[in-house]
This record gives sequence, C-alpha cells and structure tokens, in this order.
Amino acid sequence: MELMPIVPIAGIVAVVFASYLAWDVLRRDTGTPEMREIGDIIFEAATAFLRRQYQTIAMLAIGAAVIVGVVLALLSPGTNPQEVGIRTAIAFLAGAAASALSGLIGMYVAVKSNVRTAAAAQHSLNDAITVSLRGGAVSGFSIVALSLLGVTGIYYLYGANPQTTPSAIVGFGFGASFVALFAQLGGGIYTKAADMGADLVGKIEAGIPEDDPRNAAVIADLVGDNVGDCAGRGADLFESTAAENIGAMILGVAIYLHTNNPVWVVFPLVIRAFGVFATMVGLLVVPLWGRMRPDPHEDPMNSLNWGYFVSVGLAVIFLYFAVDSMLHSMWFFWAGLVGIATSIAIVFITQYYTAGAWRPVREIAAASQTGPATTIVMGVAVGFETTASTAITVGAALLAAYGLGSQAAVEIGITASEAGLFGTAVATMGMLMTAAYVLAMDTFGPITDNANGIIEMAGAGGEAREITDRLDAVGNTTKALTKGYAMASAALAAFLLFGAYADEVKRLTGAATFSVDLTKVEVFVAALLAVMLVFLFSSLAIRAVSKTATAIIEEVRRQFRENPGIMAGTVKPDYARAVDITTRAGLREMILPGLLPIFASLAVGLTFKALHLDAAQAVGALLMVGTIAGIMLATVLNNGGGAWDNAKKFIEAGNLRDAAGNVLGKGTQAHAAAVVGDTVGDPFKDTAGPSLHVLVKLLSTITLVLAPLFV
Amino acid sequence: MELMPIVPIAGIVAVVFASYLAWDVLRRDTGTPEMREIGDIIFEAATAFLRRQYQTIAMLAIGAAVIVGVVLALLSPGTNPQEVGIRTAIAFLAGAAASALSGLIGMYVAVKSNVRTAAAAQHSLNDAITVSLRGGAVSGFSIVALSLLGVTGIYYLYGANPQTTPSAIVGFGFGASFVALFAQLGGGIYTKAADMGADLVGKIEAGIPEDDPRNAAVIADLVGDNVGDCAGRGADLFESTAAENIGAMILGVAIYLHTNNPVWVVFPLVIRAFGVFATMVGLLVVPLWGRMRPDPHEDPMNSLNWGYFVSVGLAVIFLYFAVDSMLHSMWFFWAGLVGIATSIAIVFITQYYTAGAWRPVREIAAASQTGPATTIVMGVAVGFETTASTAITVGAALLAAYGLGSQAAVEIGITASEAGLFGTAVATMGMLMTAAYVLAMDTFGPITDNANGIIEMAGAGGEAREITDRLDAVGNTTKALTKGYAMASAALAAFLLFGAYADEVKRLTGAATFSVDLTKVEVFVAALLAVMLVFLFSSLAIRAVSKTATAIIEEVRRQFRENPGIMAGTVKPDYARAVDITTRAGLREMILPGLLPIFASLAVGLTFKALHLDAAQAVGALLMVGTIAGIMLATVLNNGGGAWDNAKKFIEAGNLRDAAGNVLGKGTQAHAAAVVGDTVGDPFKDTAGPSLHVLVKLLSTITLVLAPLFV
Repeated sequence: MELMPIVPIAGIVAVVFASYLAWDVLRRDTGTPEMREIGDIIFEAATAFLRRQYQTIAMLAIGAAVIVGVVLALLSPGTNPQEVGIRTAIAFLAGAAASALSGLIGMYVAVKSNVRTAAAAQHSLNDAITVSLRGGAVSGFSIVALSLLGVTGIYYLYGANPQTTPSAIVGFGFGASFVALFAQLGGGIYTKAADMGADLVGKIEAGIPEDDPRNAAVIADLVGDNVGDCAGRGADLFESTAAENIGAMILGVAIYLHTNNPVWVVFPLVIRAFGVFATMVGLLVVPLWGRMRPDPHEDPMNSLNWGYFVSVGLAVIFLYFAVDSMLHSMWFFWAGLVGIATSIAIVFITQYYTAGAWRPVREIAAASQTGPATTIVMGVAVGFETTASTAITVGAALLAAYGLGSQAAVEIGITASEAGLFGTAVATMGMLMTAAYVLAMDTFGPITDNANGIIEMAGAGGEAREITDRLDAVGNTTKALTKGYAMASAALAAFLLFGAYADEVKRLTGAATFSVDLTKVEVFVAALLAVMLVFLFSSLAIRAVSKTATAIIEEVRRQFRENPGIMAGTVKPDYARAVDITTRAGLREMILPGLLPIFASLAVGLTFKALHLDAAQAVGALLMVGTIAGIMLATVLNNGGGAWDNAKKFIEAGNLRDAAGNVLGKGTQAHAAAVVGDTVGDPFKDTAGPSLHVLVKLLSTITLVLAPLFV
Repeated sequence: MELMPIVPIAGIVAVVFASYLAWDVLRRDTGTPEMREIGDIIFEAATAFLRRQYQTIAMLAIGAAVIVGVVLALLSPGTNPQEVGIRTAIAFLAGAAASALSGLIGMYVAVKSNVRTAAAAQHSLNDAITVSLRGGAVSGFSIVALSLLGVTGIYYLYGANPQTTPSAIVGFGFGASFVALFAQLGGGIYTKAADMGADLVGKIEAGIPEDDPRNAAVIADLVGDNVGDCAGRGADLFESTAAENIGAMILGVAIYLHTNNPVWVVFPLVIRAFGVFATMVGLLVVPLWGRMRPDPHEDPMNSLNWGYFVSVGLAVIFLYFAVDSMLHSMWFFWAGLVGIATSIAIVFITQYYTAGAWRPVREIAAASQTGPATTIVMGVAVGFETTASTAITVGAALLAAYGLGSQAAVEIGITASEAGLFGTAVATMGMLMTAAYVLAMDTFGPITDNANGIIEMAGAGGEAREITDRLDAVGNTTKALTKGYAMASAALAAFLLFGAYADEVKRLTGAATFSVDLTKVEVFVAALLAVMLVFLFSSLAIRAVSKTATAIIEEVRRQFRENPGIMAGTVKPDYARAVDITTRAGLREMILPGLLPIFASLAVGLTFKALHLDAAQAVGALLMVGTIAGIMLATVLNNGGGAWDNAKKFIEAGNLRDAAGNVLGKGTQAHAAAVVGDTVGDPFKDTAGPSLHVLVKLLSTITLVLAPLFV
C-alpha cells in the first residue's frame, strides 16, 4: 500500500505535463495567412461536428443512465437495490463525461497542432516532428490522466472499500464505453464517408489530385481525420484503460478476500501510475534522436521508435519494482512481461502485414495488374490470413500469463485459477503502461495528415510538402500500429474482463463456481448470436459509411455541375455545405449500430431468462464468443484495409513493375485497381474495425453492470 | 424395430430408381455433331481432372488411414486398442471410397446430361427441364442410396450392437468428410479459377462475350462447373448425410442405455429411408406441372418448387408415421417439423438476400453506379447482414427442437438433456429427408449452365439459347438454395454432432458429465484459435483460386499474343493446354487448406494435453466455436457472392436506371462495376463458402475419431 500515493501524483504530473505540452505547441508559429485560414476552417468545422455529436450522445447517455438506474433499482437482488441503481447511474454519467472530455481534448489540440506542424515543416523536419508528436502527446497524457484520476476518484468517492467498491464503480466503465462507441462510430463514419466521397468524386470522377481545393469535400475529409482518429480513438482508449483497470481491480478483490491485503485491488492503479512516468521520459527523449542523427534523410519512424523503446525499457524496470514491493511474487513480473512482449509482437505483425516491405502488400500490388477484382480478392485473402499470427500470439500470451500467474498460487495462498487470472490482468496492465506514448503516436497520424493537406491547399509546396509527405507516411504507420495495440489489449483484456464478470456472478449468486458450458443449448445459441452480432454490427457500420458517402458525392457533383467556375479554379466551392451534409448524415447513421450491442445483450439476457434458461451463462457466452469473433474480425478489417492502403502507396512510389520491367505507377490500370482496393479498405479499417474494439469492451462493461438482471 | 427392413429396401429402390433415370437420360438425343464434339471435349477434360484428383486424394486418404489407425492403436485407452485402430482405419477407407464414388457418379451423369439438355432445348422447354432435372436426380439418389447403404452396411458389418457399434463406425464419417473436403476444395478452386480467368481475360480484357469459343479458358470454365458443383457438392452432401446420421445414432445410444430399446439407435436410418420415397414421388410429379400449365412463359422454377413441396408434404406424413410407431412420443414429431420448417425458412432467406426482386441485390446494383469500390463495400455489408436472419432462425430452431424434445423426457424415462439433444437430432434428420431432391436441383444447376455454354459454342442460338438461358438462371437460384440448405443442415447438425462428441468423451472417461467451460483459459484460447482457423482456411482457399486464375490468365494471354488467328476466329485456341494448366494448379493448391483443419485439431489437442491442460474440453471448444464461426462466415461468403452475381444479372436485365431515368445496362460503367463484384464473389460463394461447410463437418468427425487421444 505504501506505493498508493504515487497514483494521484502521477495523475497530477500527467495533467501538468499535458498542459506544458499544450502551451508549448500553441505558442508556436501558425504559418502563412493561407495556412491559418484553412486551419481555422478545419477547426470550426471540427468543433461544429463535435458540438452536435456531443449533444446527440449526451441525450443518449442521459437516457441510458436513467434506464440503467431504474432497471437496476427495480430488479437488483440484495437489500438495497435503489442505492445500486443510483450509484451505477452516477458512475455511468461520470464515465461518460470523462470519456467525452478525452475525445474533446484530443481533438482540440490536434486541430491546433496541424497548422503549426505545417508551419514548422517550412523550416525543419525535426521541428515538424516535435510539434506533431507533442500535439499528439497532449491528447495521450490528458487521456491517461483522466482515466487514472477518474477511476481513483470514483473509487475513493464510493468508499474505497477493497471488497465492495470495485463492483460499485463498474458503471464508470460502462459510461466510458457507451460514449466511446458512439464517438468512434460517429467519427469513423464521418471520416471515411468524407474520404471515400472526396476520393470517388475527385480523384476518380473528376481526375483531380487528393486534397485539391476545387473539391468541395476536401475540408470535410480533413475534418474527418480529426473527429475520427483523434476524438474517436481518444474516447476509445480512455474507455479501454478505464474498463480494464476496473476489471483488474475486481479480480484483485477475490485475492483480497483470501489474503486480507488490499494491495491486490489497487495494484492495477499503481502500475498505470508508473506507466505515466515511463512514457513521459520516452516522449522527452524523442528529439535527442534527431540531434544524434542530423541526417535529413533519416526515417522519422526511427526517432519515434527510439522514444517508444525507452518507454518500454523503463516500464519493465518500474513493473519489476512495483511487483517486488507490492505483490512479493516475481511470477507476476513475468506475467507482466508477457503482456509487454505481446504488444511489441503485435506491432511487428501489423507492420509485416500492412507495410510495403514484405510479402502481403507486394502480393496485393501484384494482383492489381489483373484489375480491381483480383486486388480485392487478394486483399481479403491477406486480411483473413492475418488472424493466424494474431490469434496464435494472443493465445500463447494468455496461456503464458495465466500459467505464470498460477505458479504464485501456493506462496500467496490462493487458488491457481485466481492467481492465473490475476496473471492475465497484470499482463494487460503491463501492456497498458505505455498507453500514453502509443496514443501520442496515434494522434500524430491525423495531425501530420492534416498538415500535409493544409500545405497542399495553401499552395505552399516544395520542401515543406516533401517533409509533411514523409510525416504523413509515418503517420499512416503509427495509426496502423495503434490499431494493432488496441486490438492486442482488447484481446488480452477479454479474458480478464470475463473473469470479472464471472466474479460478479459468483458474488451475486453466492455460488462458489461459475462456468459457461458450451454443451448447454442456450450457451451454444448465445455463442451463435454473438458471432452474428459482430458481423451485423460491422455491416451496419460499413453501410453507414456508404450511405453518408453517397450523400457527399451527390453534393459535390451538384456543385461541379451548377457552378463550372469551381472546376476552372475561379470560384471556391461551398465547403461548409459539404461539411454540414456529412455531419448530419454521419450522426444519423451512428445511432443504429451504436444501440445494437446494448439491445442485443439485453434481449439475449432477458429472453433467455423468461424462457427459464440459464441467462447468466448465455450472456457470458455472448460476451466471450462475441469478444473473440470481434477481435478476429477487427484484425481482418484493420489489416486488410491497411494492406490495400499501402499497396496503393507501394505502386505510387514506383515499386511495381510488369513482366516487361516497366514501372506501373500513377495513371496505370494497376494503380486504378489499387485505388479501388484502398477505397474499399477505408470503411473497414477506420470505421468498422476500430468500432469493433469498442464493441467488445462495451459488451464487457454492459454485462458487468447488468449482471444482477441475469442471475 | 419392425420398420428397420425399410432401410435396405429404400437403399435398393434408390439405386434402381437412379439406374432407371440414368438409362432414361443416356438414351436421349445428343444433338448436332458440333454439340456432341463440345460435349465430348468437356467429358474428357472433366474425367481427366477427376482421375488426377482422385489419385491425389487416394494417396492422401491412404496415408491418413494408416496414421489414424496406428495412432489409435498405440494411444487408445481400453483393452483392445489395436482393434480400435484397425476398425477405424477400415471404416475410414470405406467412407472415403463411398464419398469418392458419390462424386464420380454425380459428375459422370452430369457431363452426359448437359449435351442432351442442349439437344432437348431445341425442341421444348419441358423436355429440357426433364432431362436436366433427371440428370441431377441420378446424382441425388445415388448419393442418398450410397450413404444409407454405406452406414447401414458398416453398422451390420461391425456387429449391429446398439451400444458399441455407433462409436465404432465414426471412422466412416471421417473418411467421407476427408474426401469431401478435398473434392470440394479441388473442384471449387478449379471451377472458380477457370471462371475468373476466363472472365478477366475474355470479357474484361479482350471484350468478347461469355462462353466465346475464341477464349482458350472457356472449356476449362465449363469443365469447372462439373468438377466443382457436381463432384464437389456430391461428395459434400454424401458426407453430410453420413456424418449426421452416425452422430444421431450415437445420441440414440444414450437413450438405448436407459430404455434398452434399440429403436433409438436405428431411428435416424429409418427416417432417411422414408425420405427416399418422399423425394422419389416429388421428382416424378415435376413434369405434371408443365402439363397442367403448358404456358411457354411459365417460370421453370415453379415446376421445381411444386415437386419440392410435394416431397416436403410426404416427408411430414412419413415423419409422423415413423415417430408414432417407433418412438411413441409425438414431441419428437414436432421437433422434426421444426427441422423441416427451418430448411424452408433458410431457403426463403437465401432467396431474399440473393435474388433481384428484393432490397439487398437492388442496393448493390444501385451502388455500382458509383464504381467498383462502392459495389464491393455494399456487397460486403449485405453479406455480413445475412448472418442476422440466419443465426436467429437457426438459434430459434435449436432452442425449439431441444425444448420440444426435452418435453418427452418424463414419458420415456430419460434425462431432459438427452431427450432435448435427440430432439435436435430428429430435427436434423427431418431436414435431411428431402436431401435427394435438393441434390437433384443442385446438380440441375451445372447441367443447365453447361447446356447453355454448349449451345453458345456450337452456334445453335435462337430459341434453344433462350430456353437454356432461362434454365441457367433457374440453375443459379437452385445452386444458391442448395448452399442455404447445406448451411442450415450443418448448423442444426452442429449441436447434435457436438453432443455425440460429448457422449464419446463420457463413454471413454466413464464420467457422468462433460462440459466445455469457456471460463477455463485453455477453452477460451481454443475458441480463439477456432475462429482463426475458419478465417485462415478461407484465406488459403481464396488465395488458391487467385493463384490458379493467374496461371490461366497468363496462358490465355499467351495464346492470344502468339496466335493472332485465334482472335480473328480462324484458328481454334488450345483448350486442352488451358485445361491442363488449371488441373495442375488447382490440385496443387488444394493440399494446404485441406490438411489445415486436420493438423489444427491434432495440434491443439496434443499440445494442450502436453501442457497438462484439459485437451478434451479445448478440442470441444475448437469444434463448437469453429462450427459456429464457420457457419457464419460461410453464410457471409455464400450470400455476399450470390448477391453480387445477381446484382450483375439485375443490371444486365435492364432493371437499373440512373437519376435521369436512363437504363444502365451492359456496356455502362455501372455494369463494369457489377462485373467486378461478381468476379470477387466467385471464389467466396463457390470455393471458400462451400468448403467451409465441409470443414465444419470434418471438425466434427475428426474430433469424434480422435477423441480417445485427448481424454
């Protein structure tokens, strides 16, 4: 327990650090008047989207809080159902608000950083990296701070009783997931609909380049990067860290009941506090790389990797220290190490499948020579294939972390399964130690993407354009890596969150054991419905992008048709109208997929209970099999989409040659086919895939909160 | 038991009936000399493929039989492991041989019927329907007869002991699935690679029509329909009926042990025997429809439907009679009715999603106006969406059949779960009663497709071409329906086969209960690997098509390039060489995906056992979750592919109009985009999807056979 004070300290340090970074970014040069103008347009449009989106989400969240509170107050077993209902509703709203705030901060700083990155790119690569990464880090550290302080705060607010409080705060995680799902869905639909719309009507129909100012959808496209990748991913990672933290604390309760030692409950918080310090150092050392290697042709990815490995190294040292002084069993250190190693392995697997240097992307590029059909078929084959290395890695990590943890059972005096489960929790927490750094790298992506667009639109060209082009390419890689990381953490956390659900059911029923037995017909049917749910959700998300994109395409076509001056370059298109149409359509389309998992969980639980079947087990199967299928399908969609994207870039870079040795670059049939692949991959990798990560977390938190209804 | 003699009688009647139909088809007119020539080329090429394929499969099967026999002889628990090994190996080879024979018969008659259908189409629609459907029925009845006589024969050969024989004959099912998997994979790869290759290089690159004799790949394409759809599907449905029959018998053993009444074990055989009579009548009444409605514009689908509903009606009556006189509990009649109703519901769902009259296909056609990317995205969204109605239907059917069956527990004196499981078995058997008719309709598809191609290549055109065009369209529908039927039977059977596995484990361990508990880490990891397995298998299957198609495309291009006379129409292309290349590539590419599920089951079982984890439960999870994921992914691939196919046909029929009201037909951008969708869908719906049906059955039979290794 003596390490507990580090938690609020780390939270406050993270806030101060984020504020310093924000000040440092905001005081920088905002570039030419043209850049400022475009930056302001993006800022206003993004803020307008977020304002409307948050109004919609706020209404949904308040409605959900009331429903959850009332239902729990009426139907909870136990002596004090009203209190359970009210507490859960308040925790839900707190989690929802914190999640929303995370998204807001992430996006605010990002849209302020993009124009400053564009300005810095006019002078130096190193400066541009510093601005964009620090802009990203504001978001990373704010989110981690909010999550740490939020969970700690509500834990103390609700009595800090190691036995009962963790269950009382599950509403916080549910609120966070609830908002994250809508934020990720709404943002993801917006960004990819704008991207698809702009590409289809601009690059393909009108034959003008990407980010060309004559395209009315181009501002919507730039706004999309912010509302999807920054705001959406911010809310997503906030809820990941919060939900996994609470789940790990619930698993700690079981051990606390045997050992009477509360360190098991607060250990997850302490580990994450150490992570703040490790990532802060890692971030601060990034510019050193540029000074050590002042070569202008140096790949910017190297300096980001260097900072990341410093963070990882420190995380390992801190993990050792924390386990040694709190848990007194080194087996958990090894379990935590498994988690850290898994995140690194997944990052490499993601790179292998989505970067141009290896077989998969080259295969897709080669297939583009026989047209769009073979490009799509090969991309699907690659996407499906990526599940293999991912599942084997995650499966081995789970078995290893569980096996290592369970070795500690005898010395601590708990059961092997409790110790094993806690091992998987430590692995997850170990992986999440570097979350702030990964988040910073992720937000780096849309910032550099925007900076590139601003330079193109402001006509600043030249060397600055070259620098932002290179940063943009690195940003694509970091975005792909973050998705891999988010997926791996979701996969590793799945088992711990399910363990938490099992502990909740045992606590509520008073039974000594809880199993989810697939030989029962209701469990089998629930598992079938779980896989279906994942496909249906993805279908709705993809369809939403398609519908919204159609609305944009029609608007841009209308503007081209009704105002020939736009194509001639003499009149500016009506960007605001295109933004407005995208906003409305995107928000309308997010509601149905967002509500689906909530209704599905309730429907399965309550229907099966009404049929006198074992609803608690059925919901458990819905959660576990849904999580497994969700993770696998997200892997397919993310990696398939990323591979198509990079196959197109591979061709654009002049790396593809036909049988006669001619380079097949832009303007060839092969490139046109690769563009089709890229466009198909967009809603897969930036809407459905990331939303599935949130879906699986939401399934966890909703089943945790509603467990009293199903037992 | 008094009904048992009906089983061999039905088998013999089916053989006689099939022989009569074959005689009736073969004695018919073979058309013009041109038709005969093309028919002979197809026949020779198809036979050559099958000969080579069977050589490869025979080597693999003998190898597998030896390995399975030796491993079981060495590692089986119990007093007589050698006998278990030898018996299983012999049963395996018997099943493998019967499955291969089913494929051979199906294909032989189909390639003899196609030219006779083409000839008949020169005179009358009704004649053409009769020839093609009877050709299909030879295959349907031969397969059903082989399956019925095969299972019955091996049951009596191995002692007909109601307690021990069902477990002893599981090797028969495994052998059948083993051959079916390779037959379906090899045929599926061949057919779609030839189709994709012919389309890409012919329709898209050279701009010549489908089935144009100048295209060197056109014969390979026609051959493909036979080796994929006839031989592959024949082996597939043979193993479905055999495996599900054996699984149902194993479930019957549990009830026999309580009641000492062997009817429970042989009931599944009797039900299927009745199915033979029901479908025979249904088939014989088909021509009556044409006589009742001699309108030449009558949709041929109506007469097929009429025959089907007669079969279903008779099946219901026979089911009632069999349940009443053997099981003495009407609850099982209702459970069987659930199965029959489910097959009808799935057929309608398949039609809704893949036929042009409803929303999904229209949506894809509309999306083709904005290019291939939106066509693909919308098709994927539709494919994902189809899981919803399918999963809900199958889930409800399982709960209903189980619930109805369990009502019979008290009157029979068995446990509710034994009675419930037997309820799902009766539902599956009820659904399979009409298998011969469905198989006949399925084989009707490739026969009419070939007849159409023969008429085109023989230049017979005119009214005959119009008739075969219409039959070809109906054939596409019946092929899609069969896939829906095969999928539904796989889904419903999954739970019964899993129940059989659980019974096997209980028998081997002597334990009273067996559960597959997802809260165990090894079960969770196995479930994760199961979903991965399904994706990886599909990836390999799709990639195999892609690789093989590339080989064909290069060959056709070479022929066009080196011999300009081909395009001019003065020289015939070298069809044989294109066929040969497709054959070699297709057979090489089927090995890896075919061996994957076998190695995966062994690897999970043996690795987990070596790690001292609960291997029997882990393999159970691999089986169940793999089956669920496999069924859902097959649904996505089959229906998505079917919807793309029909969206293209919808546009070709002139049903799509742009905003200004102009018809967008062949030659438009929208049609070109729809062709891309169709091409992408080909390997999905005809290679990966159907192979997944076999994969899930193979998982069932392999785990049943290898259960002694894992306990």
